[in-house]
Amino acid sequence: MKKLRACILGATGIVGQHFIRILADHPFFEIEALTASPRSQGHEYGRQVDWLVSERVPEIVQEMVIQDTCADTVLRLDPDIVFSALPSGIASDIEAQLATAGLPVFSNTGAHRMDSSVPILIPEVNPDHLELIKYQDLGDGYIVTNSNCSTSGLVLALRPLMELGVRKLTVTTFQAVSGAGRRGVSSLDILGNVIPFITNEEAKIVGETKKILGTRSTGEVIPAPIDVNASCARVPVLDGHLESVVIDMDEPVSIDRVVELLENFTGEPQALTLPMAPSRPLVVLHENDRPQPKRDLSLGSGDLGMTVKLGRLRCQGNQLNMFLLVHNTIRGAAGASVLNAEFARAKGVLA
Amino acid sequence: MKKLRACILGATGIVGQHFIRILADHPFFEIEALTASPRSQGHEYGRQVDWLVSERVPEIVQEMVIQDTCADTVLRLDPDIVFSALPSGIASDIEAQLATAGLPVFSNTGAHRMDSSVPILIPEVNPDHLELIKYQDLGDGYIVTNSNCSTSGLVLALRPLMELGVRKLTVTTFQAVSGAGRRGVSSLDILGNVIPFITNEEAKIVGETKKILGTRSTGEVIPAPIDVNASCARVPVLDGHLESVVIDMDEPVSIDRVVELLENFTGEPQALTLPMAPSRPLVVLHENDRPQPKRDLSLGSGDLGMTVKLGRLRCQGNQLNMFLLVHNTIRGAAGASVLNAEFARAKGVLA
Amino acid sequence: MKKLRACILGATGIVGQHFIRILADHPFFEIEALTASPRSQGHEYGRQVDWLVSERVPEIVQEMVIQDTCADTVLRLDPDIVFSALPSGIASDIEAQLATAGLPVFSNTGAHRMDSSVPILIPEVNPDHLELIKYQDLGDGYIVTNSNCSTSGLVLALRPLMELGVRKLTVTTFQAVSGAGRRGVSSLDILGNVIPFITNEEAKIVGETKKILGTRSTGEVIPAPIDVNASCARVPVLDGHLESVVIDMDEPVSIDRVVELLENFTGEPQALTLPMAPSRPLVVLHENDRPQPKRDLSLGSGDLGMTVKLGRLRCQGNQLNMFLLVHNTIRGAAGASVLNAEFARAKGVLA
Amino acid sequence: MKKLRACILGATGIVGQHFIRILADHPFFEIEALTASPRSQGHEYGRQVDWLVSERVPEIVQEMVIQDTCADTVLRLDPDIVFSALPSGIASDIEAQLATAGLPVFSNTGAHRMDSSVPILIPEVNPDHLELIKYQDLGDGYIVTNSNCSTSGLVLALRPLMELGVRKLTVTTFQAVSGAGRRGVSSLDILGNVIPFITNEEAKIVGETKKILGTRSTGEVIPAPIDVNASCARVPVLDGHLESVVIDMDEPVSIDRVVELLENFTGEPQALTLPMAPSRPLVVLHENDRPQPKRDLSLGSGDLGMTVKLGRLRCQGNQLNMFLLVHNTIRGAAGASVLNAEFARAKGVLA
Repeated sequence: MKKLRACILGATGIVGQHFIRILADHPFFEIEALTASPRSQGHEYGRQVDWLVSERVPEIVQEMVIQDTCADTVLRLDPDIVFSALPSGIASDIEAQLATAGLPVFSNTGAHRMDSSVPILIPEVNPDHLELIKYQDLGDGYIVTNSNCSTSGLVLALRPLMELGVRKLTVTTFQAVSGAGRRGVSSLDILGNVIPFITNEEAKIVGETKKILGTRSTGEVIPAPIDVNASCARVPVLDGHLESVVIDMDEPVSIDRVVELLENFTGEPQALTLPMAPSRPLVVLHENDRPQPKRDLSLGSGDLGMTVKLGRLRCQGNQLNMFLLVHNTIRGAAGASVLNAEFARAKGVLA
Repeated sequence: MKKLRACILGATGIVGQHFIRILADHPFFEIEALTASPRSQGHEYGRQVDWLVSERVPEIVQEMVIQDTCADTVLRLDPDIVFSALPSGIASDIEAQLATAGLPVFSNTGAHRMDSSVPILIPEVNPDHLELIKYQDLGDGYIVTNSNCSTSGLVLALRPLMELGVRKLTVTTFQAVSGAGRRGVSSLDILGNVIPFITNEEAKIVGETKKILGTRSTGEVIPAPIDVNASCARVPVLDGHLESVVIDMDEPVSIDRVVELLENFTGEPQALTLPMAPSRPLVVLHENDRPQPKRDLSLGSGDLGMTVKLGRLRCQGNQLNMFLLVHNTIRGAAGASVLNAEFARAKGVLA
Repeated sequence: MKKLRACILGATGIVGQHFIRILADHPFFEIEALTASPRSQGHEYGRQVDWLVSERVPEIVQEMVIQDTCADTVLRLDPDIVFSALPSGIASDIEAQLATAGLPVFSNTGAHRMDSSVPILIPEVNPDHLELIKYQDLGDGYIVTNSNCSTSGLVLALRPLMELGVRKLTVTTFQAVSGAGRRGVSSLDILGNVIPFITNEEAKIVGETKKILGTRSTGEVIPAPIDVNASCARVPVLDGHLESVVIDMDEPVSIDRVVELLENFTGEPQALTLPMAPSRPLVVLHENDRPQPKRDLSLGSGDLGMTVKLGRLRCQGNQLNMFLLVHNTIRGAAGASVLNAEFARAKGVLA
Repeated sequence: MKKLRACILGATGIVGQHFIRILADHPFFEIEALTASPRSQGHEYGRQVDWLVSERVPEIVQEMVIQDTCADTVLRLDPDIVFSALPSGIASDIEAQLATAGLPVFSNTGAHRMDSSVPILIPEVNPDHLELIKYQDLGDGYIVTNSNCSTSGLVLALRPLMELGVRKLTVTTFQAVSGAGRRGVSSLDILGNVIPFITNEEAKIVGETKKILGTRSTGEVIPAPIDVNASCARVPVLDGHLESVVIDMDEPVSIDRVVELLENFTGEPQALTLPMAPSRPLVVLHENDRPQPKRDLSLGSGDLGMTVKLGRLRCQGNQLNMFLLVHNTIRGAAGASVLNAEFARAKGVLA
């Protein structure tokens, strides 16, 4: 089967770099074009980018000339698929234009996430939400989004617990600086400090969690009736969002039952053995002081950063406490979007 | 009035150093003797200590010879008052021995906090708990403890809100490394990392909060009927514990009412204008990204570190969210203990 | 004597904030006006600034309306003296225009430092260089600059050693992030890292050191015949540049002689007891692991940050090794500039 | 050829962990036994160790029972080869005892490095120093040491430049906390700080550099006549020592010539294609702000951490400036020792 030719929008930022790293050697997709802001346009990628996400810029994009991020340019390049790592502000129009012009757009951006017929897809969690694309009013193309970085770990951990009757979720995040992008957090602000605020993050967690765990009703989603309370903070950590989570259930819960549900959880991506799908979406660490961003972000050579790590599980009455760790720029961004595209392809809506 | 001669137990650690810094120039107390582990015994304090808490070791203790931490030694030194910054393990016996021998012991240690007739005193919060000392079975002396560092900020913030009917408290902490003491946290463990575990800390927050906010009934305390859920983590911050707090009330709350209660809150230490009492125990910061450990630990020259800073107040239904910041080694340790002694003196039980 | 009315150019940046902090309560100067970039113009300072340098924005500038940074605006405000904390790029023209229009300009900027008749003044080191202003071709006004931040500590330490015959200087710096300004260093770049490069810094150290220690010959300076070799790196430290220094002398040196020279060093600012002058410009720390940025930046309540700390002195043959620590935004920036103005006033060229 | 059975002394520390990581899947050696302090003795390695150096404890040592670090125990285990990661204090006697009893000991410890007939071997630099073992007075066994961590990078960079006539070396180090071991540097000391002192480090750099680059004369080494000046500091970096180096040559040097010598440098380990030998011992980075510990410690999947990275080469007259980066726990410790053993085996003195 021929590889689909991909265009990556916003290719010089952190998430754009992860898209490149993941797609540089992917069985389904190949990188056809890269776009960035006008400042970078016309330059060779390898010379222009401040590469931060792995040892070296992949050979395949070293000399690729960066294109301008505009719909006309992208349409002229005529890719089979578009991955978007654009800032929210400029993503809204161009993503809609490209979809309307017939392109499938897999977007990490928040711009269209809460649009009623746009799925926030996490294939282990809400695979049927992919169906929403049939109801989009966007010509032959469509937009599929992945969730906000901190939401991704949260809903993956919640999914297998839903059968216990999740009523309420209280979360406090410890978020890494890479989530704010290349120059998002100044060293003067974060060295030896914690900043208890991230713009819009708490509202995103509340809205997206309820939508992702919600029930699809033809072309829209009825939000899950879960009470979500979120508090977000930035910490001096490079990669990996840690989250302190309290879940209120309908009935008393036992640790054994919870661990069993979490460890046995798999979804369609696992059944389909998609390239980006981890063998297990959730791993429970049993040491008493884990997960830790610096030590547990990756479980080893086979872990692409798509596995969410859980630890410090504690039950009391109807409440379950845990800490979870999610790789914010992979499972919470570029990796999530690529998994969505793999899933869409497996479902026959991408060719 | 003659100053009371104080002996500081465990004077070389971080909390011991803060005791010295505060008492070096105090109107009620003067430093008479310092104890430390056998390794330090017999050395001049200024040469032995690895001083970390201010610019210089105060002149008054520079050449003071460190004594052994043992009851006989302390009794031979015959102080008027004892401040204890000992590790919990060795504090239990010696504090009891000194009290039994007639000495008033103001302890920062956890050893006796949960003893039924030992108060965990925060004079703005539970001044009448000082009465418990009458029921202690410890001869002419007594033990007064202050709370665990993270608990101190929490109960101060809760006190004025109790009239709104506090039912439940969910807290996640971001704790500074100084709380673990001089060599408590290795740099290899915490640089660029978060450790989601602190030994016993969560149980301390639960137990102490309920006791401090509880009702004294002659010689014991009936714990407050508040459901407390705590999750504790260590972050790469030097000083200042930040806490994400969710409070469930009996009825819907409004921000205006909450701010009014918090900002108008004062207690007996303020009425008595005790030296360590801040003019206001609680200060609400109105910027959207505060309080931050590095920027808000001190409000200025008049702030000794006893003021708890609150911010990001959010109300939804019966729930109030906030972040609070407490100076862990001052309001959460040495400063708290000295304030307790000042309060005891004002109440006539110290002379 | 009436206070001179000062205008601070570039008042919202880190150095501008230090100017305000220092001048808010100064015996010779009072803040009359503040300028910043167009983005800030017209806003009240207290609402616009992201204040980082002390607890609170001084009352006196809270409601002061920020002016545009342009020569016409400043001239219309008609101050007695101008302090400039502008970025080098935009400083060059406006500083020259203001001087030409008759104003004395005390600048922290690099723009005019190497102009032949502009002094890089450090009054303890080269007080007679102030005479250069007579030869400036700038109408009734003049420009006095202070040195680059890392150079300031270096030449202060060298001054008293010059009599031993300094031939060569080899320096490697460990520079704090505040030296790069408000958003100069991204957290992604510096957390857990060292960056062995700072734009132009090495050339500045070489050129400025030779000029400051050089001999004035009427209207210009003959550079000191010292061989200077500099290597500069950025480290994850907030404030305080540490420098590893090797000095080659004409003859063998002894530690005792070096310490004596360093500790007895004073200059005209000390003789004149100028407000910003530290009682001793140099302090030698005798512990074996000092100076350290976090612990030694300030020596105590009387230390405004103008004292350079030295330590780890080692002699071998004709070579002297040491580490020095300089407060980069005070002795290396705003404080240096204010001291220069105080000195100019004492010398009768400012009224 | 049968694998040699290795015993690792001091297996729970950082360097011991790297020995295990490297030897867990090595073509020449297999792990036979592990020793540690009495506290760990008798426990399974996987349960006892606080594993820090990679994702997971290798399967092969998970259940291996830790032995006591004493000569009798090791001799009873009868290994073919001993790798020592012991602290210097306890290494001296046991390493001598094991060698005397006939065992080849490859030691990362400083204890015997400066013994006249003990080589500090870096096979790319001084391969003939291996001959020294014939002159050791240690029975049938022998001791081969590798250098101190910061020295290793330095002498590798110097080796190809020796033909230009190296007369003098001035180095300032920026050393990572992992070099101090598991609990060597407290977070209170290093967060946001630089500590300009590391016990004995400067003397080690001076002595070892001169010995390694020295000329073997039968059973001893005549130190190289190079003047070495070292200043060492600890920085808040996890792994990777950065060093600012100034080299004085006999004659003027050109960048082109220096780069050519550095990039073409290879040694016997490369000719022998030893498993731990990097394809090139030295790599010159041409970006203007490299090497950086966080970004350049590894060049990619093929880089085991044995390549030294150089950058910011600057020539002026007879002087060459550069920054170099060495992986302190690999090229500067465990990897160096394993390479030495591979080299000894290739030379026929290990079987």
